[in-house]
Amino acid sequence: MNNALLIISHGSRRSASNEEVLSLTTSLREAAASSVAIVDCAFLEITRPTVQEKIDQMANSGVTSIQVFPHFLAAGAHVTFDIPREIETARQKHPGITFHILPHLGSLEGLPTLIFKTIQTTS
Amino acid sequence: MNNALLIISHGSRRSASNEEVLSLTTSLREAAASSVAIVDCAFLEITRPTVQEKIDQMANSGVTSIQVFPHFLAAGAHVTFDIPREIETARQKHPGITFHILPHLGSLEGLPTLIFKTIQTTS
Repeated sequence: MNNALLIISHGSRRSASNEEVLSLTTSLREAAASSVAIVDCAFLEITRPTVQEKIDQMANSGVTSIQVFPHFLAAGAHVTFDIPREIETARQKHPGITFHILPHLGSLEGLPTLIFKTIQTTS
Repeated sequence: MNNALLIISHGSRRSASNEEVLSLTTSLREAAASSVAIVDCAFLEITRPTVQEKIDQMANSGVTSIQVFPHFLAAGAHVTFDIPREIETARQKHPGITFHILPHLGSLEGLPTLIFKTIQTTS
C-alpha cells in the first residue's frame, strides 16, 4: 500500500476542537488500517501541521496517491477555493502523486441516515 | 406522534451554506417520517428562524417532546454554552415540552465508519 488519506480541517483556537479532529483521525486510521497506508490530518489556519507540511511528509514516506477529505460542514470558500488551491500547489511540487478531493463531510450521502440512527438510539 | 427534531446550525452569511442545512433537514425529514412528527432547523446567528422562533412554532403545533441536534463539528462555545442556554430558555417558556440535546454532529459514533465507506466507494 502506498496510498494516504489526508483529513483537512479548518483549525481552531480551541485546542479541544483540534483534538476532536485528531481523535477522528485516529478512529479513521483504525477503520482504514487494512486499505490505507497513512491516515493523517492537517489544518488550513491557526494550528499545524499545515496542508503542505503534511503532504511533504507523506511524499517523503513514498506515498503515490492521496485522498483528501475536507472536514467541513458546508461548501464555503475553504472547501471551494482554499483546499483545491492547496492541492494544486501540492500537485506541482509532487507530480508523482495522484490527488483526489473527496466530498466534504456535510455532503456525505449517508449523513442523514447516520443522524437518524443516532436519534433513534438516544430517544 | 407529537415529537419533533430540531437541527440547530450556526447560520452563515453564505446562503448556499444555509441551504445545505435546509437540504439536510429535508433528507432527515424523509428518513424520519415514520417516527418523528416534525423535523425542522433553526440558526444561532446571522439568519433565521431563530431557535426560539422555531421552538415556539413547534409548541403551537402541539409537540410535547423535542430532540435537539447540534449541527456542529466540534464542541465549541456554541455547543457547550449557547445551545444549552437556548434550550433552558425554551424549557422555561414551554414547561409541557421535554427537551433532549443529542450529541453534536462531529461526535457521532458512526462518523469514522461513514467517512471510511465514502473513501472506499470513491477511490
